[in-house]
Order: sequence, then C-alpha cells, then structure tokens
Amino acid sequence: MHAYRTHTCGALRAADASQQARLSGWVHAKRDHGGLLFIDLRDHYGITQCVFAAGSPAFTAADAVRPESVITVTGQVVLREPGTVNPKLPTGEIELRVADLAVQSTAEVLPMQVSGDEKFPEDIRLKYRFIDLRREKLHRNMVLRSNVITSIRRRMIEQGFLEYQTPILTASSPEGARDFLVPARLHPGKFYALPQAPQQFKQLLMVAGFDRYFQIAPCFRDEASRADRSPGEFYQLDFEMSYVTQEDVFATIEPVIAGVFEEFAEGRTVTRPPFPRIPYEQAMLEYGSDKPDLRNPIRIADVTEQYAGSGFGLFARIAASGGVIRAIPAPGAGSQPRSFFDKLNDWAKAEGQGGLGYIVYDAEGPKGPIARNLEPDRAEAIRVACGLKAGDAVFFAGGKKDVAPKFAGTVRTRLAEELGLMETGTFRFCWVTDFPMYELNEETGLIDFSHNPFSMPQGELEALNTQDPLTIKAYQYDIVCNGIELSSGAIRNHRPDIMIRAFEIAGYTAADVEARFGGMLNAFRYGAPPHGGSAPGIDRMVMLLADEPNIREVILFPLNQQGEDLLMGAPAEIPPARLKELSLKLDLAPAKPKVTGS
Amino acid sequence: MHAYRTHTCGALRAADASQQARLSGWVHAKRDHGGLLFIDLRDHYGITQCVFAAGSPAFTAADAVRPESVITVTGQVVLREPGTVNPKLPTGEIELRVADLAVQSTAEVLPMQVSGDEKFPEDIRLKYRFIDLRREKLHRNMVLRSNVITSIRRRMIEQGFLEYQTPILTASSPEGARDFLVPARLHPGKFYALPQAPQQFKQLLMVAGFDRYFQIAPCFRDEASRADRSPGEFYQLDFEMSYVTQEDVFATIEPVIAGVFEEFAEGRTVTRPPFPRIPYEQAMLEYGSDKPDLRNPIRIADVTEQYAGSGFGLFARIAASGGVIRAIPAPGAGSQPRSFFDKLNDWAKAEGQGGLGYIVYDAEGPKGPIARNLEPDRAEAIRVACGLKAGDAVFFAGGKKDVAPKFAGTVRTRLAEELGLMETGTFRFCWVTDFPMYELNEETGLIDFSHNPFSMPQGELEALNTQDPLTIKAYQYDIVCNGIELSSGAIRNHRPDIMIRAFEIAGYTAADVEARFGGMLNAFRYGAPPHGGSAPGIDRMVMLLADEPNIREVILFPLNQQGEDLLMGAPAEIPPARLKELSLKLDLAPAKPKVTGS
Repeated sequence: MHAYRTHTCGALRAADASQQARLSGWVHAKRDHGGLLFIDLRDHYGITQCVFAAGSPAFTAADAVRPESVITVTGQVVLREPGTVNPKLPTGEIELRVADLAVQSTAEVLPMQVSGDEKFPEDIRLKYRFIDLRREKLHRNMVLRSNVITSIRRRMIEQGFLEYQTPILTASSPEGARDFLVPARLHPGKFYALPQAPQQFKQLLMVAGFDRYFQIAPCFRDEASRADRSPGEFYQLDFEMSYVTQEDVFATIEPVIAGVFEEFAEGRTVTRPPFPRIPYEQAMLEYGSDKPDLRNPIRIADVTEQYAGSGFGLFARIAASGGVIRAIPAPGAGSQPRSFFDKLNDWAKAEGQGGLGYIVYDAEGPKGPIARNLEPDRAEAIRVACGLKAGDAVFFAGGKKDVAPKFAGTVRTRLAEELGLMETGTFRFCWVTDFPMYELNEETGLIDFSHNPFSMPQGELEALNTQDPLTIKAYQYDIVCNGIELSSGAIRNHRPDIMIRAFEIAGYTAADVEARFGGMLNAFRYGAPPHGGSAPGIDRMVMLLADEPNIREVILFPLNQQGEDLLMGAPAEIPPARLKELSLKLDLAPAKPKVTGS
Repeated sequence: MHAYRTHTCGALRAADASQQARLSGWVHAKRDHGGLLFIDLRDHYGITQCVFAAGSPAFTAADAVRPESVITVTGQVVLREPGTVNPKLPTGEIELRVADLAVQSTAEVLPMQVSGDEKFPEDIRLKYRFIDLRREKLHRNMVLRSNVITSIRRRMIEQGFLEYQTPILTASSPEGARDFLVPARLHPGKFYALPQAPQQFKQLLMVAGFDRYFQIAPCFRDEASRADRSPGEFYQLDFEMSYVTQEDVFATIEPVIAGVFEEFAEGRTVTRPPFPRIPYEQAMLEYGSDKPDLRNPIRIADVTEQYAGSGFGLFARIAASGGVIRAIPAPGAGSQPRSFFDKLNDWAKAEGQGGLGYIVYDAEGPKGPIARNLEPDRAEAIRVACGLKAGDAVFFAGGKKDVAPKFAGTVRTRLAEELGLMETGTFRFCWVTDFPMYELNEETGLIDFSHNPFSMPQGELEALNTQDPLTIKAYQYDIVCNGIELSSGAIRNHRPDIMIRAFEIAGYTAADVEARFGGMLNAFRYGAPPHGGSAPGIDRMVMLLADEPNIREVILFPLNQQGEDLLMGAPAEIPPARLKELSLKLDLAPAKPKVTGS
C-alpha cells in the first residue's frame, strides 16, 4: 500500500465499498457523536468522511489531533446508512472506517478558520495566506484562474499563435506609467527596468518575422493599488499579429475570448462573436463612457438642438454657449413617487452637479418642473428622440462638452440600478473603436496624443498632412465586458515617416523621437510588416468569471494595498554590504528629532 | 482580396495553379535572369518564388527594392517548368507571376545578412536581434523552444498538475546565489527581490493544499554568465507534489521529460522510462562525476586495493596514506602508438596532475612503465576488475580522495573523445540519487550542508539523532542528460522539529533558523503535507534538443555576457528625480583624476 494514499479525498464511491483504502489530508472538521468520532478529511480533490470507533487506538489519536493537522488514515470503505448519505458530497455515499491513523504534521492553534464562512481581516488573511488559500472559494478561484489560462493558451495555439518569452530584466519603456527599477551590480550607476508590458518586444518579434505571438505575460507597474489593479505585478494575454487589419484582429481574438468565457460561464450567457463595434464618439454619446456596460438597456440621446432657444432658460443658455444637453431615458419611471426624483436630484448635487432635471410622460403628456417651461412640441420632440412612451421619464445632464456627456453616463448607471434594469448572469462584450488620435490639452492649448502614440492614424500620412488633427482617428480599439475595459489594442504605426510626422503634430521634433524611441524606430528601418494586437488583462477576466470585485481574490500571493508581502516580509531592508555592492547609498529623509524633557 | 495576403509564403502548391494570390513578406533573395527577375519572398511559414516580367511596372518596383524590405505581391500562381521545380521547397512546384507589387516597408542597407550562412560578431547579432532572429536556424530554435514549452505544459496537465503563477516581486530567498533587488519607492530604504526560484512559494502551495503545482517559471540570479547560463533570467519547469515518495516523483516526471524529448528527437534516441538511478557514491566512483554522461561507455573502477603494498611505489604510497587509485579503461587503446600515451601524459600534467600512468594488455600480458614494477598477479587483478581484454589499455588517476575520483572522470571523458567512443544521436537520461546530507568543510573542520538544507534526510529525525552526520543521505536527486544536469530536486523536509535538528548539526541555533527561515517554518506549523519536486531547466532542455552549445541561441532577446541588452540599451542611467523618488543616491567610486600637463 502506498505510504500516503491509495485514493484522493475526492475519489471514493459506493462501488469502492469493502475495499481497503488509505487517504491523506487535512483535518477539516471533527464531530464527536458519543461512541463514534467523525473527521472530514480534506485535500485538493474533495472531502471524505472518516469514522473512528470508540476504544480504538485510532480513536484516541483522532481525538487528540487538532483541525488542519495533516494525517494519513487507513481502513475499510463502507457504505453509509441510507439516512446519513450526503448527496452534496461526491463521496457522500461512503465513509472510511479507520483502523490506523498517522499524524504527518501537527497544526498549532489556527489564526483563522478554514471551514465555515467566517470573515477575517485582510492582514491576517495575507500573513497566513497558506491557510487562507485552503478555504473553499479562494482555493476554487485559483483553480479557475489556472484553468482559464490553460484554456486561453490552447485557444491561442489553435488560432496559429506561438507563445514566446520576452525579457523581464530590460530597459525603461515609454508606456507612461512608472517602472520598477533594478540596480545593475556590474554597471555602477545603471539600472534595468521591469517591463510595464512587452509592447516593444512584441513589435520587434513582428519585425523579426514571427507572425503571430502571444504570451501570458507578467507586467510590472509601480502604481497605487485599486480594487481592480494589484500593486506591483499583473498578467496580460499579450498578443500581436502581422499582415492584419483591425477586423482581422477582432475576428481572431473574439472566438478566443468568447470561447473562454463560455467554457467557464456556468449558466451565464456570453456575447456571441462578432462582438458589437461601437465607435468612440457613439460610446460617449449613447453610454456616456468609453467603457459601455451593455447589460444596461438605457441609451442616452443628445437633445441640445431640442433645447436650443427653448423656454427652459437654463438649458437654452447652455446650448447657446456651446454646451450640450443629454437625455437619459428612465423606462417606466413615470410611476415612481416624487421622492424618487428628489433623491436623484440630491444625489446629482452631491456629485457636484446643479441638480437633475427630468420630464415625466404620462397619458396626458409631459409633466414636471422642466415641462412647465418647455414648449410642448419640443417636449414631444425629446420624447421621440428618446423613444419614450407614456409612463416613462427622462432625465437631463446639461453642461460643458467635456463634462455633461460623462455625467450622463453616471446617471445612466444609477438609473439602471434604481430601476432594476441591469441584466444579470450575462457577459456582454463590445469593441470600442475609432479613438481620436489627438486631443486638445485644455491647460496648454496644445495638441497631445489622446491615447497611444504608436497607433496607426486612420488615413496614414495623408491624414496627418491634410486633416485637422483633432478629427483624425486612430486604428485603436478596446475590448469592454460589462463596463470593464479588458484591454486596449491597436494597429501599430510601422512606418518611421508616419511616426515622425505623428509626433511632430504633438510637438516633438524628429530628434526627440529618435532620442526617446530610437530602438523601435531603428527596427522599423529594416523591413517591418504591418501589424497589430492587444493585451486583455488576465486578472480582470478571472475576476469577472469568479464574480469577485477584488483582484486580490484571484491572485495566489498578492501584495497588500501598501505593496507589502506580509507573508514573506517584502520589501525588506538589506545589509549595507549589498548596497555597497550595488554602488548605492540610502537617501532617507531625516528622522524627526525626538522631543525630550529638559 | 485581403489587403495583405490570401496565402502565407509557405502555403501555395501545384493544386493552386492558375489561381490569383496575394502574398506579403520579406525580400529574401533577388536574382536577375535577363528578361525575368526572381524574388524569393519569405515569411514565418516559408518561401515562395515570385517572378517579374521585364517591362512591367512591377518589374521596375521589384528591381528597386532592397533585400529585407517588406512587400505585398499580387498575381497568378503558375506551375514551374519541370526543370526548375525545387524539391527542397514545399512551394517548389509553383511560382507567383506578379502583376502588382506594393512596398510596405523599405529596408535600409543591412548590418548583417539574413540569407546565407555567413557568421557575424555577437555584438552585431544582439544589437540587431530583430534581423538575426529572421535567420533560419535561430528562427527555428525559437519556434522549437515555444513548441517544447507547449508540449511540457500539455504533458504536465495530463499528469494532473495545474499551473500557478508565483510572485516575481518578492523577498530575498535563501537559495544561496545573489538576488536582484528592486527598490520599493513607497518604503524608503527597503527592497523587493526577484526570485532565484519559486522554491518557498511552491512549498507554500503544497501547505495550502494545491497538491500538484507546476510553472514555467522565470528565475533570476545576479551571477556571472556561462555558456549554459544566461546572465539575469532563465526559465525552469518548476514542479512540486504532495503525498509523494521519491519514486512517485520519478514516475511522474520521467514520462513528461522522455515524452518531450521523443517528440522533438528527430531521429535521435531517448532513454525510455524508468531512467537508470545511480546513487551519488556510485556516480563518483564509476563516472568520476555527479553528472554522468551515459553516452560514454567507459566505467571507472577503484583499484586502490590492488595497488596497496604493491611494487609500484607511487600508488602504493598513495594507498598507504589514505588516497585512492582509480582505473579508467581505454578499450582498444592497446593498438595506439606510443605518442597517444605521451600526449595524454602531457595533457594530465597541463591539468595540474603528476602525469597519467597506464597499462596496456596485449596477448602476452601487461605492458608499459607501470607494469614493469607491478606484480603480475596484481596487474591481472586490475585487468579483471576493469573487465579488460587483450588489446585494451587502462589509465590510472591516483591521489587524494577529493581529487583523484574527479580527475578520473575528466580522463574518462577525454578517452572517450580520443577513442571515438561517445555515442551520438542519443539522449541518455539518468537520476543521480542519495546525495550526502552533509560534508566536512576542509577549511574549518566543521560540518556543512552539502547541497540543499531543506531536503528530508533519509531516516528522518532518528538518523539525525543517531548516525554519523557524514553518513546521512538526503532524499535529493538530480536529472542528468548526456552529462548535463537538468535539475536538482528533493523530497522536502516538512517537519519543523527535523529541520531545526538538521540545522543544529550544521551549527545553526534554533534562533538562527527562525530568523532566517521563519516564514517557511511557520507555515509548516499549521499542517504541512509530505511533499517533493524538482525544476528541470527549460533553456538547457532546448539547448540539448536544438543541439546548440550556447544558451543565447535559444533565447529571443538574451543579455550579452556583460549583462547588457545591446538592442534596448539596458542597463541605463536614470534621471536624478527617479533616484530621489526611490530614496537612493549613487555611491560611485571616484573617477581617476586626469593627468594634465603642467
């Protein structure tokens, strides 16, 4: 018989009854039923009930063993009494009648429980992560994560991609966030950087002719933590393809993403490819966001025209001064009490807005404070523009062009929540496309890149040379799921002449570009294919599938929000000799002088 | 028609003749045959011959385009004339008669050629890695590497493992080599470390109950580079299993390794599982190495006894003073000229040895300088001990116990090379087992750990308490292939009591152990399963399969031997503001004062 187990704790079934078996695992729970003692023995694969008869040496040992100790039990598999069968447990038809128990590892008194649903503070959970990870939901999340990544890999390979590893010790990259730096011991005064993303390397792979690259890539940003962003490191499905248009990228990755989500949907529905494509301008108009949540059925409409020159002076003045008025339909809200509208008005004020005007349409026509001042034909035009029927209401966000549309998006979300309109049990995907290449920096009055300077402008060199820069769009696209941006991608600018011109528009000289991005530019001078890609976030995909709002619930050993590893004790001070070896000195702020009595 | 391609450059066949096709790729080679111009167009998938008829606009464009430019060509697929079919090329039956050529990217004059076999200096190759990677062998190596890793993953998952990602920003680890450090901006004066290996995390995963873990894990060591070790980072197939014995680990990983090697063997033979197990002591005796190359048929024998008290005074004295004499058979070397033996004697002297004695056995008996002073029955006993027949010779390495066996191993290798005895076209695997737990530090006279202090000693606590430490073996094992160590592994010590005792023998107090390895020890106090694993080196496996002696030939973007990335320019100086932000100052050696004329 094997030293530790003949079966896992999830393996035994009724058909195994009367066999001798040996199991090893953790003491999940103990129950003393007078003459009998029960231990639920747990491992990665499941739980098996073990029974110890009073008076046996095994009983004495079992009685003494603390929860979460590791034991090996040997005995006979027996069918449970019909009344004690546990249909929730795959092993619930049997139990192991234990003849022999060996303790492999004794557990001390635990800082947190494994069985049960008790909540524990995050610092305890992270310090004792090796116990926390035994708990059912977290353990399952990690298995899910592993299976999701395996599924992604398989699907990418089926799509003709190969996985390649790009360097982790590399040079500072121009992505914009802050790099982590690594002192180079053999090059005093110099530093490596950890990659914020393998962006340049994957483009170099295209230039080197690898055609279809992917990598489950570790990325590093020295940024503050958020619920959906772990400090330090994160993983993305980094991919890049040569000789493709934007539609080729979409057609290639949609079946991968949709396939993975369907595989782990567990009854939830998933958008079928092709995913809806929503141009950026339309997204900002209809959803008030470049991350539209399509589970929300509300669509925003622009009603600036309807209010221009109208009797409702506030909005008429906004329209006259170049602002916009957006209408956010509230289907069925006509039957809501006055308090509903007042509450939303107060909320809008708390959000820094003047208030939240509305019109209710009932069988007799438009109602409410705005409707009293608005010409009926205009109120009717708004009703038509918003597709409203009797019993519906509509709210309005009016103001400056860069403020009102986004606030309309916030109202849209709030209304869907208030009115219970959000679809549940669904993953709604879309692409947001046609991002503007440039934007006006309001402070400086100058033209900046709006997103990624390395995307190919639509219309290429001719557009750069002939169009108003603020009207140029880029071949740039985001994948959004349920209002969460999974990734940003682009068809890249692979032409040095177009790149230098694109930067010139944003105020960089050719020399600036050579100095900052010379490596990439140089590569493009020796034969570069047209190429594009994207990099959906792995952690975010797993968060969605695991239905977890916090990213630390889908990472094995996350840093805490202060960027500390409470389990291993990182970051830590290092001996002076190590610093010396790295040609570094600490440059700490002087400690505050202690106030002493005199 | 697609903007860039209807087919890849490896796709077209005779059956496609008369179709219109569009291809994109790099201009691999150009040949001008009077009225016709040929371009071999290359992409990741292959090469297709494109033909341009004189006088066409496409001809003019093709004539102007430089090698390695990226072009898109459109035209008709036609069968080649029977005499011009190229059977070496999968597309060799057809060519594309080009009607239209568009240049996607113009190549400047190249710093190195892509086609052909010319050698280029490594600094040029690394600086222009994106061109170097287009060359056939290197490109193929990277694809092989990707396929090997994919195959490993598939096989590990088939064996019931799940892949999990462990942290890259973590704490300093006790593996012994030098860590790379990462200043923690938000924690002035503190540093993260990059993992030398995920050793502690994989053990924590076992404590957390994940049962079977693997990871294609990036590892980081701030060490000097060697032919088989890239500076900076490398990858290993890191794995760990719970509730296993050493034999379970072997039985699980052997089919993975053998399977991968068979899959990519291309006609080479691979050891079938189970791999031979060679205890450390036997390896040191018979192979003179703990990394036995089983392609070499020579087996070393100990002949100390045969020389003790013999007429060959030098070896008799060595035997009398506690040294050893090892015999290295040289099958068939009896027919070698005297110069063969003299050359080897000179080589041994150059290696710092006194010389290299030998006996030749011919039909009449033993011959040579040693045989003249050695009693015939002793010479015969040596012949029998070494399994020699007439026509063979045997060499001797005599000296101290810690020197002579290793030199015997060097002689064994040299003889196999000289005599052409090495098997070729084969991957010969073995396990080296039963490494000693401790060794005597000759300088201090104290007992040190010989390899990994975290391995379980054979005999566990009882052995530690009752045996001479120098006789205790560990459950520690290496996988060796063709004399190259692929990995070191062990059944781990999961018991705090045994660990503290094991360290005590090596001179550490319990407090020392708690201070240095408290994290791990603490985890073992809350229920730890028996567990073990290993971590075969990915780069080394690919080197063997690609038949490349230099590790940089199997890595996409390797650092050079000075740890520099010549392409991206790393490591690099950083702006003073970045240093300030990290609470660091440079501590550079003062520059040497310039000598100026007076």
